[in-house]
Amino acid sequence: MPEALQNLIRVLSRLPGVGRRTAERMAWRLLLRQQGLLQELRDALDRASREITLCKRCGNFAEHGEELCSICRNPARHTGTLCLVEGAPDIQLLEQSGAFQGSYFCLGGKISPQQQETVAQKRLAQLASRIREDGITEVILAFNTDVESDATASMLAEYLHSIGVKSSRLAFGLPAGSGLAYSDPETVSRALSGRQEI
Amino acid sequence: MPEALQNLIRVLSRLPGVGRRTAERMAWRLLLRQQGLLQELRDALDRASREITLCKRCGNFAEHGEELCSICRNPARHTGTLCLVEGAPDIQLLEQSGAFQGSYFCLGGKISPQQQETVAQKRLAQLASRIREDGITEVILAFNTDVESDATASMLAEYLHSIGVKSSRLAFGLPAGSGLAYSDPETVSRALSGRQEI
Repeated sequence: MPEALQNLIRVLSRLPGVGRRTAERMAWRLLLRQQGLLQELRDALDRASREITLCKRCGNFAEHGEELCSICRNPARHTGTLCLVEGAPDIQLLEQSGAFQGSYFCLGGKISPQQQETVAQKRLAQLASRIREDGITEVILAFNTDVESDATASMLAEYLHSIGVKSSRLAFGLPAGSGLAYSDPETVSRALSGRQEI
Repeated sequence: MPEALQNLIRVLSRLPGVGRRTAERMAWRLLLRQQGLLQELRDALDRASREITLCKRCGNFAEHGEELCSICRNPARHTGTLCLVEGAPDIQLLEQSGAFQGSYFCLGGKISPQQQETVAQKRLAQLASRIREDGITEVILAFNTDVESDATASMLAEYLHSIGVKSSRLAFGLPAGSGLAYSDPETVSRALSGRQEI
């Protein structure tokens, strides 16, 4: 197999959820010249690297040429409620749910007590001034469910409580359209401890 | 979501086996700037489009700057047995099995009685001269199992028989490491009709 082809397969297999065999099938599809998919993908990557910037205020993806993202530019989204996420992709997922009307702030990672100088810790100072300037009264912590995220959430809740800001965390439980039979013990345990009166 | 990001997700979801959600996750990974994966993928695509050519003799992928692929350049692979495939990716899959020691010929598609001027039909004349020049005595048809491939195989077998060349087709049956419980009725039917005495 030509070295350039092996190289393409190697890079493709670094994409999430792509194993060696899938990367090979992707390479074959890309190399079917009549489709022009290779050129299109190259152009899309070019354009993404050139045009996509991060919002100076919240860290979300911003439109080309804009300093702020579409949410930060929308006065209706300044509700006094701030949703704290790890990164810009999380904002897209929350927006797809359509269930949140406030604004966002990307932490850019997790806060680790061991590493004092992480990106997230530098962002903490910016979070503090954002809360002050925007008159934020409630913060929703929209983190994942791993141990480090739990630690980050605890530290942040403590900090927010100390400056008199209400905080909450996304609920954990059974996923919609699923049931006990498809859930792991940790999910069932969290669903039990988070049970709600009906 | 910025237009450049939507565009990237749209192009990624045209890759085989990639749905909207997977394309999104790929885009997030690509946009994590510290990893540099976006740039690496762009470079790999650039290099592939520049360097990968097709072997003038068999249609396989050829190394950069070579007219012929590594198999056609290897005299030990000129065994008088030719394996006929649809495209260059099929050759990689057959080579990975290590079970074939002859040389290849890509048909570049299927032969359809309706469309007289397909790529495959033009390649037929080239196949005829290849058989003559290389003294090919046996041709293995390594096609898929769909209806069009079956029709192509029948037509080719008839032609090869008319010029006195032995032909065979890959066996159909249960996949290795699998069993009846995981096979569709058509596979079971083909495994039955292709049963071998033990």
